[in-house]
This record gives sequence, structure tokens and C-alpha cells, in this order.
Amino acid sequence: MGDVNIKFLAKELNLSTSTVSRALKDSYEISAETKMRVLALAKKLNYEPNPSASSLRGQKTKTIAVVIPEISNNFFALAINGIEKVARENNYHLLIYLTHENQEREKTYFSTLYNGRVDGVLISMSVQGSDTVHFEEFNQKGIPLVFFDRVCLKMPNTKITTDDYDSSYLATKHLIDVGCKKIAFLMISKNISIGEIRMKGYLDAIKNHTNQNPLILECSNDIEENYELVKTFIVKNKPDGIFSSVEYLAIECYNVCKEINLKIPDDIKIISFSNLQTAHLLNPSLTTIAQPAFNMGQTAAKLLLTAINKKGTSKITEPVVLKSRLILGNSTSPTARSSSNRRNRLRK
Amino acid sequence: MGDVNIKFLAKELNLSTSTVSRALKDSYEISAETKMRVLALAKKLNYEPNPSASSLRGQKTKTIAVVIPEISNNFFALAINGIEKVARENNYHLLIYLTHENQEREKTYFSTLYNGRVDGVLISMSVQGSDTVHFEEFNQKGIPLVFFDRVCLKMPNTKITTDDYDSSYLATKHLIDVGCKKIAFLMISKNISIGEIRMKGYLDAIKNHTNQNPLILECSNDIEENYELVKTFIVKNKPDGIFSSVEYLAIECYNVCKEINLKIPDDIKIISFSNLQTAHLLNPSLTTIAQPAFNMGQTAAKLLLTAINKKGTSKITEPVVLKSRLILGNSTSPTARSSSNRRNRLRK
Repeated sequence: MGDVNIKFLAKELNLSTSTVSRALKDSYEISAETKMRVLALAKKLNYEPNPSASSLRGQKTKTIAVVIPEISNNFFALAINGIEKVARENNYHLLIYLTHENQEREKTYFSTLYNGRVDGVLISMSVQGSDTVHFEEFNQKGIPLVFFDRVCLKMPNTKITTDDYDSSYLATKHLIDVGCKKIAFLMISKNISIGEIRMKGYLDAIKNHTNQNPLILECSNDIEENYELVKTFIVKNKPDGIFSSVEYLAIECYNVCKEINLKIPDDIKIISFSNLQTAHLLNPSLTTIAQPAFNMGQTAAKLLLTAINKKGTSKITEPVVLKSRLILGNSTSPTARSSSNRRNRLRK
Repeated sequence: MGDVNIKFLAKELNLSTSTVSRALKDSYEISAETKMRVLALAKKLNYEPNPSASSLRGQKTKTIAVVIPEISNNFFALAINGIEKVARENNYHLLIYLTHENQEREKTYFSTLYNGRVDGVLISMSVQGSDTVHFEEFNQKGIPLVFFDRVCLKMPNTKITTDDYDSSYLATKHLIDVGCKKIAFLMISKNISIGEIRMKGYLDAIKNHTNQNPLILECSNDIEENYELVKTFIVKNKPDGIFSSVEYLAIECYNVCKEINLKIPDDIKIISFSNLQTAHLLNPSLTTIAQPAFNMGQTAAKLLLTAINKKGTSKITEPVVLKSRLILGNSTSPTARSSSNRRNRLRK
């Protein structure tokens, strides 16, 4: 192909380099006819502006970054699909960073994104997130930053969440309605918004509708550790209903029940926040609170691009809240069996 | 923070800008002590080199791109985890591009990656992939390009695959061994390596071990269309064994069997290439050929970085082959029941 640059295009078209440059930038100073000639040749010769040169001239990088805890998780995979759609439609490039729930790593990523690598950043915080210095520094630099799902309530930035409190209240109320007398809540971390808010929804529903004592297990972000934590917790406390605040803890409940021979929903009922595509095919099908993951990613990316194009941080202090849906499965079906079966089984 | 640049660091340390610059690049010309002083201050002041300026000076962008069909797919999510690990450990940034199985989009992405945006690219081709012009142009530019999973056999580039032929032969043989008399193969596209090679494994096993006629359904990449295709195919052909070449087609089989009331494994047995984390929790648990997805991503990324650091394309023509594993579930359990039940049920 050879190296096609603006000089080359100008020579071929018998135009000045500045005219070609302005035509490529869609400047009002250049006639429509000239623009069409320039763009046609640029396309034919597969001309692509050098992103580094454009960036140094003060133009945009046309790149955004998304910083998330993990990717082999249905919520985040779907959210990225939404983000990617918006990026693609606006000719933006998408950088991806995984924190694996480690806040030090999150900070390191932010420190590499200060100096002109991106036009803006989308983040869903790691479970260790309570420090906000790296977000504040970013705001001081004036680079747009938008939070989604796991947001930082203390920061004035735009936030996209689901209706975590209402959904958690509803999930807990559903377990009460199907007859659970000892409902446990599995949470991830108190340090992040969804940990705290989802717990509050559970606590209020328990308080308003039952005489039960709250029963909460704070889990880790280590998969093997969680399996043991969940198993010990179920064996010791014998809950007859579990509300899991995240998908992977519900999966651990299924694994534990399979191992210790507890029948779902007869012995124990399970509901979980989850975007698992196979939830309806599990044995038994899992009752879920499904988040509008794609829509959340899409909305977050749109608001980020709006902020970028306004050349301001364009902060919306009130979170943008998108609703989750309750999808009934057999894991919370009402059962006539008494709970004595379960207790006998646990004693074996 | 103010704007910290090399000039500022040099002034603070009473060194020349060229010394600071070479210290930051870990040049052998600079003493260890000076390097430590420079790095300590750079860290303290949160200095980050401007990536565009570095790139224009002919340095690396420290960025690689991964071009894949989709992300809400367990294989690709795990592969990205492997790629991300290598990128992170080597301080590389990772751009992500989703083709959604559209080759025109794949070509558009490649056309934006020519001019200095990345140091190298990893790709798993879209199902429409038979055109190779964009890969050839990339090779001409001398930018390292590594294929993984869905590779282009015609190209001389490094390729990482799993043992597709052997695994497909094994999967088909497994269905024969558990008594299937009419085994169907669900494939994605003949245009890509895994479509063709996996089909060959199926065909050879059928030919070598049975008198059955091959029964093949070539599916689409449209989810709703696939559901109808699979349903019509099963109702019409009444296979008693299905080998699905990709995970999402196995999920459609489960959905179809649920709707038309076919019992797995009594009426029909199912095995699939799959990295589904909940395969063992499905009703019934799914027998899978699990690819070493994380390892494939990691290996591909390592080989790409090797090529980048050698400043050559470093092509390994023979594919690097990593082995998949057969994981038995109940979806292929041998059953004593005759197939008359199934036929009666289909007639209803």
C-alpha cells in the first residue's frame, strides 16, 4: 500500500495539504465538492490518520476505556456489548481493563490513563473500593468519568445503576411470600454501593414483614474460599431461603446443595441477582433479578460521549436508575413439604 | 497535579532532559542509582509519558488489539482473561473489537489499526471469514498478527488452536459408544477453520465406526433463527444424538427439547464444545468438550508479544495445538429405554 499521508493525498488531488487536512476534518471552510473528492481518494487509498499525530495536535484520541472487575461474568459481558455498540457507532476505540477486584490495580490503571491516552473512562468499582483519590485526580484533570452498576456515591460524577434497593426488597419479599422462615442474604462487600444498598433492601423487607433475625454472610472474591464459606454458613445456620446479591454466589449455593444433598426448592429456596443465560435450564431453574445489563452499558457509554463532546465533565449528580426484572424459576416454587426433611438430611 | 513532563523532572533532579528520558527508558547508559532517583520522583509526581508523543518518536504504543466475534460467550470471555493477564504483566493496554460475526466490520476494524494505533493484533475470525485481503495488508505493513481458535489456515501467521479434529472424533465416538443410532452434527460455518475441521472429525468417526449417513445442520449466527432451525431439524430428522460444534447451539437444543418435550438423555443425547461454567448444573448436566480457553488466550498473547519484541512478524506456520478435555455429564448417559417413546412424543 505504501505510506499514504496528507501530503500524498494533496499531491494526487492537486490541492494544498491544509485544504486536505481541513476537508478530512469536515471544516466549514471547505466546499462540499472538495470534501467529497478528498474523502473518496482517502477511502480508496485506505488512508487512516496517525492517531498519535492527531492526538498531539490537540484532537481527540477517539478512545474510551472501561475498567471493570471481571469479564467472565454475564452482567459485565452484556454491559460491554452495550458499551461496544455505542463506541462502534461513534467510531470510538475501546480499551478494556480488568481489576480482578483489586483496588491497587484499579489505581494503577487510572494512573496510566491521565496523559492523553483516552477521551473518557467508564468504571464499575472493585469490591475493595472505598478510596476515591484516583477518581478525584481524574476529575481535576477534567477527563470525563462515568460510573455504572458499582458506583461511588461520594463522587459527583454521572452514575448509572439499577434499582438495587427496590429489587432487593422485592427479592426478599418474594422469599417471605413463598413461606421461607429463615432467610439469609449473601453479600459481596460493604465497601461498594451495590453491597450496601442491596443489603438495606433485604434488611428493610425482613424488618417490615417478619419477626426473623437478619442472617448475613459477607463473602470473599476468591472462588474457592467462597465455596467453603457458603457451605459452612448453610450447614451451621440452616437457612430455608437464600437471597444472593450476585450471580457467582448463587452458583456456589447450587454447588453446595448438590454436595450436601439439599433439595432446591424443597429444603432451601434460592433467588439471585443474575444475568445467567442458562438460568432457566438449571436444575432447578433459578429465580433471578435480571439487571438491564446491555442497556446500562449503552446508557453509560452514551452519557460518557455526551460529556466528551461537550468538552466538560457534564456531571449528573443523581444516579440514572434503570429497572431490573424478577424472573420466576422453580428454585423458589412454594412447597408443601415441612422443613423437618431438610433438618434430618443435614444431621446425616 | 500540574503538568509533569521530562523537563520538569530534569529541573527538579538537576539532570539533563536526555538523561531523564534515557533513565525512564531503562537505558544501559544510565547508572542504576540515577535511574532509581528518576523513577522515584516520576512515581511520586505521578508522571506518565504522553503515549502519543512516545509513539511519534517511534517508540511502541504498548497497546495490542483483540478482534473477536462476541464477548457474551464463555470461551471468548475466558480467552480474554488469558490475554488480559499477559497484557497486564507486560504493561500493555488492550483494545477490544467485536465483529458480531460480520466480516465487513472485521475489515473496517483492521483498516483503523494500520497506522500506529497498536503494536500487534490477536484475532479469532468471524463466521463469514473467507476473505484474507485485510490480513495480507497487515502482514505487508509488518505489524504482528496472531490467530487463535478460529484461525485462517491460508495465512502464514502464528496460530493457536485446540485439537479440533481429535476432539470432534472423540465426541462423535462417545455418542456411538453410548448407543446413538442417528447422530447429527450442528455446525456454524464452513468458511472458518473450526467449522470445517470439526465437521471432518465427525464425518470420519461416523464413517469408521457406523453405517449411519451423515446428518448435518449448518446454522446461522442469528439466535432466533437458530432456535427455529434447530427445532425444525430435530422434528424432521429425529436424531437420537447431537454433537454441537459450539456452545450456543447446544443451549438451543436444550430449549427446543424443553419445548417439544423430548427427554435428554432418554430420547436424545447431547454433547457440545463448551466452556459453560454451569454445564454441570444444567437439567440434565451437559457433557462437554471443554477448550483450554484461558491458556489459548494466554499463549496467543505471549506469542504476539514475542513477535512485537523481535520487531519482526515471527511467524510460526504450524499451528500451536492445545488439548481440549471431555467432561462427562448426564446428557449422554446410556439409557435402556427404547426410542419408541421419543417417536410417540414427537407425533403428538
